[in-house]
Amino acid sequence: MATQNSPIGVFDSGIGGLTVVRALKKALPTESLIYLGDTARLPYGSKSAATVTRYSSQIADFLVGRQVKYLVVACNTASAYALPHLRQSLQIPLMGVVEPGAALAVASSPKKKIGVLGTRGTINSQAYREAILRLNPEVDVFSQACPLLVPLAEEGWLDTAISADIVQHYLDLLKASCGEIDALVLGCTHYPVLKDLISLRATMTFGHQIHVIDSADAVADAVAKDLELQSLEYPPGLTAGADHFLFTDDSRFNEIGKLFLGRNLSNAEHVDL
Amino acid sequence: MATQNSPIGVFDSGIGGLTVVRALKKALPTESLIYLGDTARLPYGSKSAATVTRYSSQIADFLVGRQVKYLVVACNTASAYALPHLRQSLQIPLMGVVEPGAALAVASSPKKKIGVLGTRGTINSQAYREAILRLNPEVDVFSQACPLLVPLAEEGWLDTAISADIVQHYLDLLKASCGEIDALVLGCTHYPVLKDLISLRATMTFGHQIHVIDSADAVADAVAKDLELQSLEYPPGLTAGADHFLFTDDSRFNEIGKLFLGRNLSNAEHVDL
Repeated sequence: MATQNSPIGVFDSGIGGLTVVRALKKALPTESLIYLGDTARLPYGSKSAATVTRYSSQIADFLVGRQVKYLVVACNTASAYALPHLRQSLQIPLMGVVEPGAALAVASSPKKKIGVLGTRGTINSQAYREAILRLNPEVDVFSQACPLLVPLAEEGWLDTAISADIVQHYLDLLKASCGEIDALVLGCTHYPVLKDLISLRATMTFGHQIHVIDSADAVADAVAKDLELQSLEYPPGLTAGADHFLFTDDSRFNEIGKLFLGRNLSNAEHVDL
Repeated sequence: MATQNSPIGVFDSGIGGLTVVRALKKALPTESLIYLGDTARLPYGSKSAATVTRYSSQIADFLVGRQVKYLVVACNTASAYALPHLRQSLQIPLMGVVEPGAALAVASSPKKKIGVLGTRGTINSQAYREAILRLNPEVDVFSQACPLLVPLAEEGWLDTAISADIVQHYLDLLKASCGEIDALVLGCTHYPVLKDLISLRATMTFGHQIHVIDSADAVADAVAKDLELQSLEYPPGLTAGADHFLFTDDSRFNEIGKLFLGRNLSNAEHVDL
């Protein structure tokens, strides 16, 4: 049975969700986390709703078995496809990345014209569009699937001419479809490592400053508020246990993980699902 | 119990292995095939030997349960990592893609200098290097991992400026490590759809014609010889049943599959593993 003292569970298809872990540790330094990256079956972004929902349920059940008190779905594709199913089937509160990101985007777009970049799955699901329109039906939402950005980020090609060309290609497609935006959502947890490049190219493409929204900070704030609301914060004065990082495939997570987490991974373990 | 009349099983991590199906249908038009593409868990090329071997064993057991008489491992990463284990555990004959490709490369390299392009997994396994050196210990083998070529091929970006830049980047790295080659193995079943671009750029990079080796044809010839040797050919005068295409995730296999198979997929079904 999970209590206030229990850890927060966080999962992603791979290592991109470590950008959310980084923001959570900043907002909630006394909480301990269990992170699960499904590196054996990544990526989720190109796969169907049925497959992503099945994998997400397996992982959620696994983390509930590890007594987490709260679940953060730190993968945009899993948030887009699996959240309703997880909300119904789990006994603990949970938070996805789409709604906090959508709220921050609406607050950052005086012109009410928002662009969304994401995987094919996240874009096809229309989850950002729907979340934004629930908050403000007057906003125009323009979406662009960017399938090559995840492999670019995983290769660590953050500041190469090829990366710039690929980012520019997707921004040109976005501009052709919308003409104008003033806020741009990074709708995939891999994209924050490309944020500087995307910001620069978006400003060049649209001819003025674009608010680039990284959902990670928005999610961390939303989780902090929700823990307080539900009286699930870690008890003051106590020292939380160490964080744990679990991966379903061992290949390269230390090497790439550092890029996303901003420090070396400790307590990394392999698990089979 | 499989007989001469039974189908040949073929598997790959996704849809790349359809290039091998295409070659098999040309070499063995009377045989029927069951193809399984593990699209729910693709790609294999960035994952560890343990994970790839576990997934390959599951698929092989599934296909043996469907009474296949012969198994073709149409994925370079699975051939590189899992073949010894499958040889030990299965009761039916099988063929990977590495050894036929290595043999064709040795036969195509009068200068005894061979380049190999592949996924990170295939290159790290050194499977091509070892297979080539077993055939001729005097050959120099130079390998280059090309992680972005699979996503490029899956996106169908076959003839764009970005694809040309990425291919050129990897060929420049290869040239810097070796100086000279006269044959270049496409060590991944996704790469044949990029063959024209790779051939053109390799010729420009090395300043003379390079024999670009697509393992698919070599595998089909090797399977045809092996079936004859083991008296497993489909009985003459009979009509084989229809081919079947099974996928573990439904997303986009019809759309992308056509690119790799050269025709529309018929009899495509979803299976869970």
